[in-house]
Amino acid sequence: MNIEELSIDALATQLKELEASYSELAACKLALDLTRGKPGMDQVALSDSLDGILGGSYRAEDGTDVRNYGGLDGLPEAKRLFAPLLGASQDEILIGGNSSLTLMYNVIDFALSVGLRGPESAWGNSDQVKFLCPVPGYDRHFAICEHLGIEMLSVPMLDTGPDMDAVEKLVAEDPTIKGIWCVPRFSNPTGCVYSDQTVARLARLGQQAGEHFLVMYDNAYAVHSLYPGATELPSIRDYCQEYGTLDSVFQFGSTSKITFAGAGVAFLASSPENLAAFTQHLGYQSIGPDKVNQLRHVKLLRDSDGISAHMEQHAALLRPRFEAVLATLERELANTGMGEWLSPQGGYFIAFTTRQGLAREVVSLAKAIGVALTPAGATHPYGVDPDDQTIRLAPSYPSLEDVQATADAFVLCVKLASIRQELGRRGAG
Amino acid sequence: MNIEELSIDALATQLKELEASYSELAACKLALDLTRGKPGMDQVALSDSLDGILGGSYRAEDGTDVRNYGGLDGLPEAKRLFAPLLGASQDEILIGGNSSLTLMYNVIDFALSVGLRGPESAWGNSDQVKFLCPVPGYDRHFAICEHLGIEMLSVPMLDTGPDMDAVEKLVAEDPTIKGIWCVPRFSNPTGCVYSDQTVARLARLGQQAGEHFLVMYDNAYAVHSLYPGATELPSIRDYCQEYGTLDSVFQFGSTSKITFAGAGVAFLASSPENLAAFTQHLGYQSIGPDKVNQLRHVKLLRDSDGISAHMEQHAALLRPRFEAVLATLERELANTGMGEWLSPQGGYFIAFTTRQGLAREVVSLAKAIGVALTPAGATHPYGVDPDDQTIRLAPSYPSLEDVQATADAFVLCVKLASIRQELGRRGAG
Repeated sequence: MNIEELSIDALATQLKELEASYSELAACKLALDLTRGKPGMDQVALSDSLDGILGGSYRAEDGTDVRNYGGLDGLPEAKRLFAPLLGASQDEILIGGNSSLTLMYNVIDFALSVGLRGPESAWGNSDQVKFLCPVPGYDRHFAICEHLGIEMLSVPMLDTGPDMDAVEKLVAEDPTIKGIWCVPRFSNPTGCVYSDQTVARLARLGQQAGEHFLVMYDNAYAVHSLYPGATELPSIRDYCQEYGTLDSVFQFGSTSKITFAGAGVAFLASSPENLAAFTQHLGYQSIGPDKVNQLRHVKLLRDSDGISAHMEQHAALLRPRFEAVLATLERELANTGMGEWLSPQGGYFIAFTTRQGLAREVVSLAKAIGVALTPAGATHPYGVDPDDQTIRLAPSYPSLEDVQATADAFVLCVKLASIRQELGRRGAG
Repeated sequence: MNIEELSIDALATQLKELEASYSELAACKLALDLTRGKPGMDQVALSDSLDGILGGSYRAEDGTDVRNYGGLDGLPEAKRLFAPLLGASQDEILIGGNSSLTLMYNVIDFALSVGLRGPESAWGNSDQVKFLCPVPGYDRHFAICEHLGIEMLSVPMLDTGPDMDAVEKLVAEDPTIKGIWCVPRFSNPTGCVYSDQTVARLARLGQQAGEHFLVMYDNAYAVHSLYPGATELPSIRDYCQEYGTLDSVFQFGSTSKITFAGAGVAFLASSPENLAAFTQHLGYQSIGPDKVNQLRHVKLLRDSDGISAHMEQHAALLRPRFEAVLATLERELANTGMGEWLSPQGGYFIAFTTRQGLAREVVSLAKAIGVALTPAGATHPYGVDPDDQTIRLAPSYPSLEDVQATADAFVLCVKLASIRQELGRRGAG
């Protein structure tokens, strides 16, 4: 029953019970942490055979000695393995080091300071450089913009992806908007999958926006579904091809949540012209990526079928954790008016939307009883959620038992904050 | 005998013989390459046990699961292993990814665009930013400056390191000079080791130069001696401590020429304040370096004794290659007035100084008979050697047989160019 339909007496009774439960929980001295999207120990162990997998053979298929210098854009067999993840061809992908975040930062820094097409094209030549940030979104994307002095404009995230009406309007009006951040499949944090129409409209932005506009398409969870048959993402590359906008999209991916987080392989895909320009820029910074680790990944994952089989093992480990949270939310909060969420079919997050103005309060209530949640606001540019209502839940890392305990504590904090707020609104706080 | 003391007839006779030999060599269709300082295949094979060395154990000594996210500055045991290479303490070192060039680029970019001590301190706030480049030097250092729009001023490289009289004069006169590039032990390409006095004066520059001046101290060959008892480098860190200039030096090193080139571990050392600022900057770009590879390196190299033993094996492989070149130069060119060189006790290069205006000619003569040398000029800012007389020889990668054949062809080209020039000068060309 929706709390707005409950009597003050009923609310007050509930509040008393909730406060008692909260005190009991406080006495338990919990130490739970649902803050970051880290794979669990059982997940990373799925790739333990990586170390030693080469069996003493350090040759790539083209004869390259992977132990030595050379090659800025990655091994051919690594390109062949990972290109399908981004729907790219092998001449449209570059295989880098261990971090897709590094590739993203580098692309932004390149476009801003050096220029995608020479110094004349550098975004930094303009006094103002702006970026569109669908909210809620990923704090590390926003941090790159903030660190590099790029002004962020929020646009709403719908269940179909960014609100493209808003995006197209802004982009058409303001040529200083130079890009947009996207996590198109199992969006961080809402878990939505961008619709076919959204992807097509993102691909078309390159026609409508100012020069050298970039869709930063962080496909971090490209193959990270929890269920067979989870919604697929259409290929943005194919739409770009159709619209003649291949230069306007950089796609990113990595094996951070396929093999080892922090010791995997990252990659990016874009037009051959963008790749050539970016590779030249990379050449000033590096003599090349770790090709030994690329070869290890090829040996472990082999091909698309190998990746699928590997990801099914991840899904088997992640599913119970997600289902524990979602079942608890459903049982305790559905139709209560105390919050909303999607049930993601993949990715690493559940985004919980509280009643307006309660996210910080819920996080703070949880913290006080030993339950660490991602700071409220982290999902928004500059760390400010104007409606103070988004909380990101990341159930992958803790044990199933801890995930369940956290979910229980979380709903208690949500109820406590919501009922207090409702009573307050009725002048009975 | 010095060619300047030879009669025209004697020179003409020699020229005729040289031209005949050159034609014979041209007929051999050589395909030799002495261009880059790559370790040989036998050298990288010394570390083949790296892959698989963990034996399934992915825990660092502090319990960190190296397969997962976390930690921007490297594993404690990796700090302990590599800090002594740079004469740094463990709280003065950061262990990064596979490339020290990436760390150098990143430090320069950080100081230039973001600021070592906040936005006010960014070099880029000034219209002009200049760097001192001892010449001959390393092309990739110079390329970073050129790419980032930093103006380069050449200073002479002496056998004791950079000409510190020139350096101190320039730095005192011009506060827009923000740094100097150094390869202090077995300098690239001359092979010299900076003298105690040079190191002390470099450490003192922080007192004399403008604000936020940086000595970029690329100690790439810190432990790469060819002979036991090779000249040691005094600790610049200890001099900095004495002068209160710890903030003015960033030291760099890597295992690129200890284990695998391109799949090793890079590191930098500086003051705790610099490290804190730089680590924060890194945090926008990465979730951390590849800790699995760091742990592998600790297992392989273990401690300073382990590194020494490993480097002795490298020396055994490199020594004959260096000695083949040096013996050939000595036998064919000593006291002929046709060139000068040092006999390095370590590192990866021999720098040959031709008579003025002949470096490009020699490289071109060599190229015409299938012998690839580093392009003349590469050792100087903007690729321009004003005296056109430095050629960098890199004997590490080819087989000993090929190194010998290249040295023979090289001295032939040097003689040919020198005698032609001498005859030309006497009006008998």
